[in-house]
Amino acid sequence: MKTNSIKKLAAQCQQAAPQLATLDSDKKNLILKAMAESLLANRALISQENAKDLRAAEKQKLKNAFIDRLVLNEKRIEEMAKGLEEVADLPDPVGKIVSSWTRPNGLEVAKVRIPLGVIGVIYESRPNVTVDAAGLCFKSGNAVILRGGSEAIHSNKILGKILQDVLKKNQVNPSVVTVVPSTDRKMMVEMLKLSGLIDLIIPRGGEGLMKFVEEHSKIPVVKHDKGVCTVFVDETADIDMAVHIVENGKVQRPGVCNAVENVVVHEKISARFLPPMAAALGARGVELRGDEGTQKILEGIKKATRKDWSTEYLDLILSVKTVASLDEAIDFIRTYGSHHTESIITQNRQNAEKFIRALDSSCVLVNASTRFNDGGQLGLGAEIGISTTKLHAYGPMGLEELTATKFVVHGSGQVRG
Amino acid sequence: MKTNSIKKLAAQCQQAAPQLATLDSDKKNLILKAMAESLLANRALISQENAKDLRAAEKQKLKNAFIDRLVLNEKRIEEMAKGLEEVADLPDPVGKIVSSWTRPNGLEVAKVRIPLGVIGVIYESRPNVTVDAAGLCFKSGNAVILRGGSEAIHSNKILGKILQDVLKKNQVNPSVVTVVPSTDRKMMVEMLKLSGLIDLIIPRGGEGLMKFVEEHSKIPVVKHDKGVCTVFVDETADIDMAVHIVENGKVQRPGVCNAVENVVVHEKISARFLPPMAAALGARGVELRGDEGTQKILEGIKKATRKDWSTEYLDLILSVKTVASLDEAIDFIRTYGSHHTESIITQNRQNAEKFIRALDSSCVLVNASTRFNDGGQLGLGAEIGISTTKLHAYGPMGLEELTATKFVVHGSGQVRG
Repeated sequence: MKTNSIKKLAAQCQQAAPQLATLDSDKKNLILKAMAESLLANRALISQENAKDLRAAEKQKLKNAFIDRLVLNEKRIEEMAKGLEEVADLPDPVGKIVSSWTRPNGLEVAKVRIPLGVIGVIYESRPNVTVDAAGLCFKSGNAVILRGGSEAIHSNKILGKILQDVLKKNQVNPSVVTVVPSTDRKMMVEMLKLSGLIDLIIPRGGEGLMKFVEEHSKIPVVKHDKGVCTVFVDETADIDMAVHIVENGKVQRPGVCNAVENVVVHEKISARFLPPMAAALGARGVELRGDEGTQKILEGIKKATRKDWSTEYLDLILSVKTVASLDEAIDFIRTYGSHHTESIITQNRQNAEKFIRALDSSCVLVNASTRFNDGGQLGLGAEIGISTTKLHAYGPMGLEELTATKFVVHGSGQVRG
Repeated sequence: MKTNSIKKLAAQCQQAAPQLATLDSDKKNLILKAMAESLLANRALISQENAKDLRAAEKQKLKNAFIDRLVLNEKRIEEMAKGLEEVADLPDPVGKIVSSWTRPNGLEVAKVRIPLGVIGVIYESRPNVTVDAAGLCFKSGNAVILRGGSEAIHSNKILGKILQDVLKKNQVNPSVVTVVPSTDRKMMVEMLKLSGLIDLIIPRGGEGLMKFVEEHSKIPVVKHDKGVCTVFVDETADIDMAVHIVENGKVQRPGVCNAVENVVVHEKISARFLPPMAAALGARGVELRGDEGTQKILEGIKKATRKDWSTEYLDLILSVKTVASLDEAIDFIRTYGSHHTESIITQNRQNAEKFIRALDSSCVLVNASTRFNDGGQLGLGAEIGISTTKLHAYGPMGLEELTATKFVVHGSGQVRG
């Protein structure tokens, strides 16, 4: 594939977009369900193509955790199909009236949801993203260009082909779901320049990918960046609750962006809170690192460095910091956090309110696990990811967050004086 | 000023932002009113600095229309002051709960408006933008970095100083309103790279500026780009209404982005509509250009070229196109329009609905002038401009559009299973 042919693919995608933007909900849902069926019917074909990616990964001696993310087994294919069915069952955001009002001159004004147009999704090794992102974009009326990682290229191509075949059978231009058939980096740079053809870039992956996309994109980017998430244990915290929430945030799924990386403890409660916390986490194999105040109480743990405070471990490691006040905790989070998710454990309403007001993270919780910063958990339905860009959508992005709004105005001949 | 000192200015602005983000509404309103008073009290000083810009412009033999935009006379200073007072009277978007719900596990979820952080505004010759943009950003809790054009540098600097003096008197860090004291282009490029310090760039100006900003920015950009706006006169249009709306759209203020540039007419009504339209516009000095169908009816008018169809004249020129169907009109607008503002004049409800659904312009009107695509006219209050970027805010941007939302979650110890 030639480098400049990405422009042709994107242009085809853009030309196909208006048909999808005006497709009615029933037709979209029918197609999403047909896509799910077709994935199940093509299990063998998917496994066969996936095996090519797995063999290549083994040859390159990639890590087991990495190879695990690549695998499309029976269970994962069923999950992808189920995901499409769930998206079919969610309400269609397109055409929804967000608000409406009448002006003194009689003009009736409404803000109405419309698709964004063409969305470019750039992601790494998990091939299920191909289907998940295609389903969410399709339901929200957006054409999508999917550019996955080179390790999953055979899997991504067959998944794209299966989805396109369903579109063709249903008289929808298949270009609305376009899998880029090459993973050449130069071509990705070309893709990121197509500001007239692509409306939004969503990068999903590690810091390297985020920086690359930010550096090269002429298209607006909504980043799904790292989460250095903090739990603050206030002096009035319920200790059992605090231990439970920290444990859940660290251990339930350590490899995700809303897992806890830092615990900040008020020094008036640290002597009572830290020992049971250390016991609970120790039993789960978590390594603790702490500041001096923490080391005095939890003797023998490693010292936490400045670097620790801003590291997304994605692993069974937790940094612990003691503070003399809520203000110090807020300053710490502002300095080292990544504006993703923070939780305060407190019985004091005023402290909770202050914590909420002072922090501009995408999700601020009171007495609850950071793991709830998730589209499904917060009630948005399926999500394409968690935006760390304040513009457009901040936090979990569901179907509504994949739309824009336009103004629709009904008049009876009004002109401006 | 050294090129890299823009980074220092932006860092100071970012450090000052949290104080402003949590300032209460009463205090913000008091400061906005004090700013208005101070502008009026400093009329002489403003005029004196403005005169330096005017003398330089005359020396450079800039056009009269250009020089007119630079002038800060008594009336314009009063308008700026009045603008600040109006912004003070608008509701504060910060802290507003957009929506809230309770999850089955008892978590109480709310989406709450927060400031974006630091906004960079890049604009051209009108110095009043300095005050207008500062007022809107301040009220919405955002720190702002204002980078105006070189022609208005003395005016912009004195306006910035007057606003900062009021901030200091009120114990607010003056860096929340920062006027960049240099208009060096290299420094603008540096500014556009500061993605860790600035959250949003709003460029206001001509196509050259838009392209420059899009080319160089590593920061999300919400463009305020040109408007190639169309009125479609459907076969069922009320002819008097259609003439009135086209005339208003073209003549009432031709130099703005929501003025009409193209009229598309259904051929079944063209013979009845075009002669009275030409008469009304001719009386106002408007030059008409048309396709063959139009030239047959309005003999002697100039032929409209492909270039005409996509030109924002900002002048007393109008292009006219005849079509055989609503579908052809929609195709024409999709091909040549700029997705800014379109209006259909029709008595047929179905045609109106089809026109609305098919077009994704930021404002689509039925039987009303395109000139209503404006924050004040649509009821949003003052606007910082009209966004032509679908992301984040599409169409007029008022105070709410200068905010993001975060999720606030209240629990009672919930963890994820």
